[in-house]
Amino acid sequence: MSVKHSHLYAVILAGGSGTRFWPLSRALFPKQLLQVVGGKGDGSLLQQTVRRALRVVPARCTCVVTSAAQADAVRLQLSDWHDALVDNVVLEPEGRNTAPAIGLAALWLLRRDADATMLVLPADHVVKGDRAFRQAVSLGYQLAQQGNLVTFGIHPTTPNTGYGYIQPNRRSCVGRLGALSGYAVERFVEKPDLKRARLFLKAGGYVWNSGMFMWRVDALLEAYARHQPGLIKALRAIDTMMQAGQPADRIARHYRRLESVSIDYGVMERSSRTAVVPVDFVWSDIGTWSSLNSVAHRDRRGNVVRGNVVDLDSERSVLWATKRLVGTVGLSDMVVVDTPDATLVCPKSRSQDVKTLVDMLRKRAAPEQLEHVVVYRPWGSYTVLEEQPGHKVKRICVLPGQRLSLQMHYQRSEHWVVIAGTARVTRGRTVFDVGQGEHVLIPKRTKHRLENQGMSPLEIIEVQSGAYLGEDDIVRYHDDYGRSARHVSGKVVP
Amino acid sequence: MSVKHSHLYAVILAGGSGTRFWPLSRALFPKQLLQVVGGKGDGSLLQQTVRRALRVVPARCTCVVTSAAQADAVRLQLSDWHDALVDNVVLEPEGRNTAPAIGLAALWLLRRDADATMLVLPADHVVKGDRAFRQAVSLGYQLAQQGNLVTFGIHPTTPNTGYGYIQPNRRSCVGRLGALSGYAVERFVEKPDLKRARLFLKAGGYVWNSGMFMWRVDALLEAYARHQPGLIKALRAIDTMMQAGQPADRIARHYRRLESVSIDYGVMERSSRTAVVPVDFVWSDIGTWSSLNSVAHRDRRGNVVRGNVVDLDSERSVLWATKRLVGTVGLSDMVVVDTPDATLVCPKSRSQDVKTLVDMLRKRAAPEQLEHVVVYRPWGSYTVLEEQPGHKVKRICVLPGQRLSLQMHYQRSEHWVVIAGTARVTRGRTVFDVGQGEHVLIPKRTKHRLENQGMSPLEIIEVQSGAYLGEDDIVRYHDDYGRSARHVSGKVVP
Repeated sequence: MSVKHSHLYAVILAGGSGTRFWPLSRALFPKQLLQVVGGKGDGSLLQQTVRRALRVVPARCTCVVTSAAQADAVRLQLSDWHDALVDNVVLEPEGRNTAPAIGLAALWLLRRDADATMLVLPADHVVKGDRAFRQAVSLGYQLAQQGNLVTFGIHPTTPNTGYGYIQPNRRSCVGRLGALSGYAVERFVEKPDLKRARLFLKAGGYVWNSGMFMWRVDALLEAYARHQPGLIKALRAIDTMMQAGQPADRIARHYRRLESVSIDYGVMERSSRTAVVPVDFVWSDIGTWSSLNSVAHRDRRGNVVRGNVVDLDSERSVLWATKRLVGTVGLSDMVVVDTPDATLVCPKSRSQDVKTLVDMLRKRAAPEQLEHVVVYRPWGSYTVLEEQPGHKVKRICVLPGQRLSLQMHYQRSEHWVVIAGTARVTRGRTVFDVGQGEHVLIPKRTKHRLENQGMSPLEIIEVQSGAYLGEDDIVRYHDDYGRSARHVSGKVVP
Repeated sequence: MSVKHSHLYAVILAGGSGTRFWPLSRALFPKQLLQVVGGKGDGSLLQQTVRRALRVVPARCTCVVTSAAQADAVRLQLSDWHDALVDNVVLEPEGRNTAPAIGLAALWLLRRDADATMLVLPADHVVKGDRAFRQAVSLGYQLAQQGNLVTFGIHPTTPNTGYGYIQPNRRSCVGRLGALSGYAVERFVEKPDLKRARLFLKAGGYVWNSGMFMWRVDALLEAYARHQPGLIKALRAIDTMMQAGQPADRIARHYRRLESVSIDYGVMERSSRTAVVPVDFVWSDIGTWSSLNSVAHRDRRGNVVRGNVVDLDSERSVLWATKRLVGTVGLSDMVVVDTPDATLVCPKSRSQDVKTLVDMLRKRAAPEQLEHVVVYRPWGSYTVLEEQPGHKVKRICVLPGQRLSLQMHYQRSEHWVVIAGTARVTRGRTVFDVGQGEHVLIPKRTKHRLENQGMSPLEIIEVQSGAYLGEDDIVRYHDDYGRSARHVSGKVVP
């Protein structure tokens, strides 16, 4: 059963950093790109969110807002669906909180459809209950047509201090659908302290602000014009620059000057036309490792266990392995997360402080804060198997029909052994194919290119040898993805 | 200052499994082979023990007893010293507790020197205080010449239930040296329960049985003849078989039938000629991760920290990283040990139970119980960087002057890229050298050999590709180390 509403668009916010989900999430590969909940085939939180959106709008009416640094990984995940989805990626030069991101998406949408209604979905939330979700969207759509700025509220189960609270005006019902009702908002309360949160829970009637919204684009832009006139003016200028195809660094310079303000604080709390729909689906923003408890499967001792874990007597813990073996004995209320290059151990009660730990890593410029061992590129991905003075070993995966740039290195030679598929190799002036089990040497100072013309992924083991193996020893002659020594976080992208 | 005693020999027991030190120790690479304490250059516990022995005896008078499975790794560690040390390795077919191991070493020693005095040192203990150690050995030597079977006792600091206790007969002093005294033994007490251990500590005068011993070989063999006549008869037969060069599997069959009995229970407790020297050096058998506390450096919060650890607020914990990053938040009295293929998380109070966890792994035939990612061989070592269906990537290190067997694989091809040194390669009927940065392909069904004729280690990256990559796809034509499809724990050794 699919509900269709005319001129409805879904805007998925996929720019978050998910710091507290380290080491599974990284600055360049945040929480929304991970499969945190669900079984095989359910895909990442982003993919689960896209699937949810596609229940209420067609692919061409879905748009994903993300930052330039995460764009490759996001596009790769969207490529499972219709091309329209990949085309509808709106790029923020960098994350500047929700008001700029939503404003940018609104301007993008306005150009396509002046009559648009916009459903905003954060990409890193878990929602369980499709039918209830679609029901809520239908009521939201109805309220949005009346000119309301609609929020969706979650019935609180704990005095959580990590969420904003909304008090609906129960005497002012603005719409009904089945068992659902929408109300005018009495007031918004920013993240309260524990004492107030307990009071709200006891008083009843308050709901958590889910971060999902719905409005007509014209109503939203009117609210921006009234409450954030400086921001919307700057966003319009940036939108024009983007349309004119101005250089990315120039646009980024302007974007960086925008005030980092949330849609809640900057627009919703100031507006008189806000409504809230208290919903009845299971929801979590899985803000920390400990919040997994409410949405992930637990064993009979209350542990959330994933991967190659051998445990003796642990209880109420998150035990998360990716590939290597994790052995645990007698843990209570602990979080253990193991990834190929970094491990976290932390009591559940301290899981908010993982953010502080990641800040410490950032200050040390630790790569484990920024990237995974697996790094995604528009042409595929690579995994560093070993890096030592004098040599580096990578497994490289090139997607069907894709190719790396035509490039050259001054200081390293590269040996490629094809382990799956067939490689079309350019070396100097010759072009030839290298099949599975075959190999080729690319001497230093030799122009070369790696390409997959096959129908299945090409996988090679690359052994680099040389005195200097930095990713910035690269001269790029031609690139399909418009990258000419583009810098991401100070690193050159191969 | 070196103390010399005529006819003195050191016998180092290096056969322990160190199960409770998993994942740093493995069945084939136990605790004594690890650098658990000390700084760079101090080497493994075995190497530290050898160095300690060499303070009181020359290299040719030092012998190491170990099991066949650990022999390669032990010999590799001994090769830093005089060749005599490597020659003096006595191989038990498998570990059968201390009485068989010490008996075997005594028979080996007797053949060299009927007048020998034997200092027994476990390879996996920590001793701090060279001068005090040498002093204790000197007094022990003196008592051994009187015909005593000498033990060394440690002044207890806690009511430890993991050690045997010894009550010296303080009225029967059998020797003195400086501030040290030796006494006849009043009685031996096997590992007591906590209540009794507390009583001993309160009563005073009791000492821990350190597991270090000293005696004349003739006195020891007399005691074996009296208290373990069956064992010594069987050991003499096995010693004769070894001398006659009988097949290893036949000797192993006999050895496996020996009773697994400790020297303490089987000989010392039954003898009337025992003496004890209470010593004053710092000692630990570092039986568990939590015992590291007493011998390893602690930071100001009481943590023992090693490797790439980033911590926020932890206290009294062991935080042990080998290569990858370990991030910890707010841990108290925890043990976190990270190795390239396995991670342990366990409260200190449960560190005895790591043994149970390892038993669970053994039952599952988990390789992480048996071996490290780095595997030692007589010719050097290899490290598995990645193993997936269809391919396996290894870094192989061949020591100067060593070579692998002349071999052939039916189902896999191998690509070698030299990253350090020069490889002498035999491929089919041709022999050629491959230098750093060069590469070579060994097709399947091709006889080949890898050899290092240089003065520095040879390192190569090997990429195996094929449908079947088991270590048992190997035909060996010639091997310098007398291995013809020798099996260790069901696996064929390359």
